[in-house]
Order: sequence, then structure tokens, then C-alpha cells
Amino acid sequence: METVAIVGVGLIGASFGLGLRKTGFRGEIIGVSSEKALAAGLACGAISSSATLAEAAQRADLIYLAQPVDRIMETIPKLAGQLRAGALVTDAGSTKEQIVACAQANLPAGSFLGGHPIAGKEQRGADAADSDLFCKRPYILTPGPGKEGAVSQTFRLTLRSLGAAVVEMSPQEHDATLALTSHLPQLISTALAATLYRDGNARVTEVFGPGLLDMTRLALSSPELWESILATNKNAVSEALEAFIKVLTELKETIGERELAHTFERSAEFAKVLRERRL
Amino acid sequence: METVAIVGVGLIGASFGLGLRKTGFRGEIIGVSSEKALAAGLACGAISSSATLAEAAQRADLIYLAQPVDRIMETIPKLAGQLRAGALVTDAGSTKEQIVACAQANLPAGSFLGGHPIAGKEQRGADAADSDLFCKRPYILTPGPGKEGAVSQTFRLTLRSLGAAVVEMSPQEHDATLALTSHLPQLISTALAATLYRDGNARVTEVFGPGLLDMTRLALSSPELWESILATNKNAVSEALEAFIKVLTELKETIGERELAHTFERSAEFAKVLRERRL
Repeated sequence: METVAIVGVGLIGASFGLGLRKTGFRGEIIGVSSEKALAAGLACGAISSSATLAEAAQRADLIYLAQPVDRIMETIPKLAGQLRAGALVTDAGSTKEQIVACAQANLPAGSFLGGHPIAGKEQRGADAADSDLFCKRPYILTPGPGKEGAVSQTFRLTLRSLGAAVVEMSPQEHDATLALTSHLPQLISTALAATLYRDGNARVTEVFGPGLLDMTRLALSSPELWESILATNKNAVSEALEAFIKVLTELKETIGERELAHTFERSAEFAKVLRERRL
Repeated sequence: METVAIVGVGLIGASFGLGLRKTGFRGEIIGVSSEKALAAGLACGAISSSATLAEAAQRADLIYLAQPVDRIMETIPKLAGQLRAGALVTDAGSTKEQIVACAQANLPAGSFLGGHPIAGKEQRGADAADSDLFCKRPYILTPGPGKEGAVSQTFRLTLRSLGAAVVEMSPQEHDATLALTSHLPQLISTALAATLYRDGNARVTEVFGPGLLDMTRLALSSPELWESILATNKNAVSEALEAFIKVLTELKETIGERELAHTFERSAEFAKVLRERRL
């Protein structure tokens, strides 16, 4: 692997670039992004040059798509017929089923490896890039059938040496699992904030504790990113929401009854398990 | 104010005792609690002696009820006919309407002042007590009609000198507001954890980020405390849950539509306002 292209030099793309350098990669890292993002990426050393997507595709052994989900699905068809022999395209999109299907429809067999780093920060952009962003975080890969090539092996080694915990699953399994652990919590946080401001009770912003701040932190997330995440995982997200509303309705109906305490106890146990499994 | 009784020497009660000492109070602080709690309270200096409830009532100018909501409502009737002239009973219960009604039915007019410190910690018990627990936190009081006496004035001064932001509202307003800012978030966090463990997807505990940890922190809360909080605020909590489910259903129906981004934007703005209003 001699040349890498990073498409979308934001927080994730630039952090991958910095991480790559940290693992000892000395080749060219071409950035494909907006002028502002390229300037920030060059300034922090996440990329070493910039090019158009077509130019980058002609030179890169590894193409890392670090754009929002909808943009990734616009980029993939543009790479059709443009890749070097043995080149690998991978992505960091938050949903996988539609992206992988898009890659299967447009790119040669074995040239695409779906990915999703479960990593992030409050700040966005290359200015906030961190070579340790993936350290001690799950990095999901959704490999297709068949043997993987040399670039794929190098890419996996890079992730491991950055301290990421590589987890493999199918695109379907990814989307069903993330619907529960990421997309549902996001919608809940946004809906909680909406419930409070719509109520019109002016004293709501006067009397609250740290619990409400925890529960509304995800509501600060960028709407642009979430629009395409939710739109590309609508079925699994809808199912998760329905299951959640069912539990909530049951809790409402058991207020004042013994059963409520049982659910509280089991939920507390599960919340503890999550903390134990934390990487 | 020469003698204070703290009924329930747990985290809140013992923190009030330590705070009282910090403000310069040199009188007796009588603890009424379990043997274990009394030992911990004496060890940390939150109380200076112990007594039965009846003995404490005969001697105390201020009686601070720091028990769970259901226990406070068991204690109040026992104080009927037991108070010294000019004595004040106040409480730190998480709901107010039923507690205040209980006090009105059992205690002389003007002898009860409902209270609720919006403060807490992960740890419980007098061992975790902190004289600064109420500092920079809202402390809600629900004063009744009529002029307040000398003990009430001293109590308010004590809260202010501990750095608490004293907020006044009616018991009804308290319960309606806390249903939104505390009871609803608690039920949501518990229901989210329940949805995840009931789904049975084993990979849920493998791939999650800090967002899920935030959203399930409240689910770690003690079931015993919450049983009586929810039972004594059932109507307001049910209304808040219904409003929340309505918003969530609307979000589900607008996935993939423009309207979803608008709700995300407004919710993000509200989440920012909460952070600006934080004390």
C-alpha cells in the first residue's frame, strides 16, 4: 500500500490520516474534500496532497470514504471503472446495508469493504482530528464473501495497531444492532428535548439535574448527519422505536405496581453490563 | 434555632447536617435513622446525637425529613401533636403534592415547608455525604400561605449560604415540572435499557459508544426510591409519557422527510439552552 486517498477530510477522515502516519505509513495521503477541509487536513498533517476524486482514484491503493451516508452513496458510483487493479475502497458510514448494496452494484467484486468506526467527538472537522480517535473503540467491518487482498490485510492491521477493536458482522446485522445502540438513543434524546420545549412549562429550564443533561446530550447532534443515517435504516429504526414505545407504555401502566420495580432492577443490571463491556 | 433533627441520615440528610455545621451552626443535630446510618452520620460529624422520632420531635426547632417519599408520608402523621411551639418541619422528598397534603392534614398551619434539593450522587448513604452537595444546585421550596416564622427564615438563610439556588413553586407546579425534567428522563432511560435487553440481540453489548452510556446512566438508579416517586406523581408522569410517545411517533413517521431535520434543529437549540441555564 503506497498511496491512500481520504474522501471527506472531516473529523473521521483526518483522524484516520493522522492514525495512518502514526502507524508508520510514509506514502502519499491524498485528500478529496472542500477547500476549507483540505486546508485544515494539510495543516494538521492528516493529508499530504489534494486532488479531484477521479485523480485520486487513479493513484490510490486504498480509498477511505469518510463522508456522511448520503454523500458516500453519491461517491461510490463515480468510482465505477476508475479503480487501480488491487485497490480497495472502504467507508466509515454509519449505516451499512444500502452502502454495501450500492458498492456491489457499482464496483468490482472484492474491491469494497464496508466499515464503521464507533468513534466521535463533540467537535467536527479536521481541526479536531486525533490520531487516537479509534483507540479502544469498536471498528465494525462488514466483509463480503471471498478472499481479501493485500490492501485489505494492511488496512485491518492499521486499524488494530491504532488500538481499535475490529468487530465483524453482516451489513444487516450492523444496521439492526446500531438501530438499538445508536439510532434509537439518538431519536429518544431528540424527542425528549422536543417534549420539554413543546410543553411550554417555563420552569423546566429552572429545575433540572445532571440526569437531564445526560439524556439531552445526543440531541445536540448534527441534523444533517442524522437525516441520511435514519433514512437508510428506516425499517430497523422503526422496529426499535415500536419496541421501545411498547416498553414505555407497559411502564406507564405498571406505575404503583410491583412489576415496575422488576423492570427497574433488570434495566439497572443491563446498564451495569454495558459498563463492564466498555472497552 | 438551637436544635435540629435529621430524620433519615442518608446521603441527603447527612449532607444537610454537614452543611449546617459548615454555616456555623453549633447546636445539637439529632439523627433519627437506622443504627447503621446513625453510626455513619456520627462518624462523619453530620449528626451529634441520636434519638427516637418522638424524643427528637420534643426537642427540635427544625425537623428535616430526608427519607424516601413513602417513608416521609409515614413519618408526618407520627409528628402530629408532638412538635414544640414554633418548630418547623421540612422535607427533601422528590414529589410534593401528596407530601404537602399529608402535612396539611396532620400538622399545625405554618409548621411545614415542603422542599426538594435537586442534588444527588451515584453513591448513597452518609458515607458519601458532602457539605457542598447543594452548592450551585436548585433547591425547591413550596411555601404555603401566611407569614413564615423565625426557624423558616433561618432555614432559608442556611440553604442560601450553602450556595443553593432557592426556587419557589406550588406543589402542583413542582410535580408537573419534575415529571418532565426528572421522572420522564428516568422512565425513558429504564425503558431504553429494557428494550435492548429484551431484544435479545447479543451484539448490542459489543458495539456501542458513549451516547448509549449517557442514555442508560439513570437506569442504574435505585428501584426502591423510584417506586414511590412515580406512584405519588402518577398523573403528571402519565401525561408527560403520553406527550413524549406522541413526539416519538411523529419522528418515526417523518424519517426521510424534511420535517425531521426541523425537529432535530429545535431540539438541539433547546439542549443548548439547558446547558446555558445550568447553574
